[in-house]
This record gives sequence, C-alpha cells and structure tokens, in this order.
Amino acid sequence: MLKNSEKFMQNAIDIAKIGIQNNQTPFGAVIVKDGEIITSSHNQVWSTTDITAHAEVTAIREACKKLNSVDLSGCVIYSTCEPCPMCFSAIHWAKIDKIFYGATIEDAKKAGFNELEISNKTMKKLGKSKLKIKKRVLQKECKELFNIWGAQENKKIY
Amino acid sequence: MLKNSEKFMQNAIDIAKIGIQNNQTPFGAVIVKDGEIITSSHNQVWSTTDITAHAEVTAIREACKKLNSVDLSGCVIYSTCEPCPMCFSAIHWAKIDKIFYGATIEDAKKAGFNELEISNKTMKKLGKSKLKIKKRVLQKECKELFNIWGAQENKKIY
Repeated sequence: MLKNSEKFMQNAIDIAKIGIQNNQTPFGAVIVKDGEIITSSHNQVWSTTDITAHAEVTAIREACKKLNSVDLSGCVIYSTCEPCPMCFSAIHWAKIDKIFYGATIEDAKKAGFNELEISNKTMKKLGKSKLKIKKRVLQKECKELFNIWGAQENKKIY
Repeated sequence: MLKNSEKFMQNAIDIAKIGIQNNQTPFGAVIVKDGEIITSSHNQVWSTTDITAHAEVTAIREACKKLNSVDLSGCVIYSTCEPCPMCFSAIHWAKIDKIFYGATIEDAKKAGFNELEISNKTMKKLGKSKLKIKKRVLQKECKELFNIWGAQENKKIY
C-alpha cells in the first residue's frame, strides 16, 4: 500500500505523463493542503511560451489564485524532480512548508537536461530557509519519466 | 549626460515608481534587445495575487510572449535591485546575456524586505552560469525607491 506521500507523488507523476503526451518536458508538481490536492501542474514552458513555466512555478501561481493568497503556509509540494533554484526560491517565497521530491537534479542532468547544479540542500543552507525537504520519494518511478519522455519522437529540450 | 546603461536603469526606476503608485513593492525591470526596450515591468505580486510575479519574472514572461520565444539570447535586463535567486535563475534559463542591477540584496534587506540572502555572484559561481553581471548602476537612485515606498501609508510587505 502506498504511503500518503507516495500517493501524492504518484499524482505528480500522472500529471507529468499528461505533459509528456502534450509535448511538454517530463516534470510534474502537486500542491496539497490539509490532505487535499489544491493544484496539479506539468511543465508548460513550450505550451505557454514562458521559460518560467516550470511545473512548480505553475502550480504555485495556480494555488495563489485558487486560495486567493500569496501566502501558501500550510501547503506542501510534491515534485517529480528536485526543484531548480528558481522553483526552490519560488516555493520559499510562497511560504510552503515542505518539499517532497523524487528524482534529483543530477538525475535530470544525466537525462540530458541543462541544469543549474545547486541542490535544494545548498539553497536551503545558504538562504537560511526553513523549508523542510524530503528527497527521493518514488525516485525510480520519477526517473522513469525521463525515459518515457526520451522515447518521444518530437521531444524538445530548451 | 547619462550612459546608455544608466538611461535604461532610469526606465526601470520609472516603472518601479508607477508600481509604488499602484500599491506594489518598489522593484522594476526592463529588458532590452539591440538597444530597444522589449518589456518594462514592476513587481505585480499584490496586483495579480501571484507570489512569483517579481519584476524580473514578469518582464521575462512578457518578453517571451512578445518575441514568441523562450530563448532571450541577445537580451539584457536592467533591474532596480539585485535579482533574488528565483529571478536570477529565471534570467539564466531565459539565456539573457547580462544583468545590470542597482541596489543590492543587502540594501533591500536593510529596507525591511525578507530576502534569500544569496548574491548573484554566488548563484553564478555555484551554478556555473555564464551570465554577465554589472552591479550598482544608479545604486543611489535605486535605493531611494525603498524610501519612496516606505513613505506610503498603505504599503504592504510579503
């Protein structure tokens, strides 16, 4: 039986798969509050022509709208991949309590993605952030997204 | 006579002032390509209920739309304040060539803003980014924005 954290990570994997089917890069994120999903987003950089539309940033924007607040205290975010420094910082600004992530920035790099190789651990330490981080939740399944994406004929990297 | 870089920074200051008049926080950014302004944005966190709508991120989103591309190579960005790690990373992902900034993250902190205290220099070094950075352009004028904002009765911090 899946733990709650694995269940929500599976939701993030599912939305990432929908993104892949729609020619987006293989990243998904889900924001949860009080055990309920608030938003669920895949990367939308290509579909919206917006280089900032990573899965996490998109999920945060939508959660702000949905909760009518720029303060997402009490929320947690599930991301199929360790958030990049842009997304980590956005999560910090949003006052989200905790990040659960699956694959690591290193896994994404190995799969061919350009990366700003600054880990969440380093960002947290340098920025003196109180964000809690739980890594490698369903890591294998999250890494598999890179293979599914890699097998697509029309895949585009940026 | 103002240098070109100072002229564009003055444009960023002007848009920040418009933001202050509209109850937004005192930050402005301008994106320039081939000597022409592509976009000019102030922070819109409050007006759009979007914690990611910093001036730089907003300017980048709009520039992507305007140029119909997620690749802003050949562009430079003028920001009244040293970009936060979220904005620095967004600028890196957008492949913008160079950041010109006025006030520093430390100046913003002294003015009462919460900050993730990771300088652009540190982000560049750790992330092995090729972004060029020119700091303290019209720093005094950019810092003055914090005072103008601070004198507002209805100012809101986040």
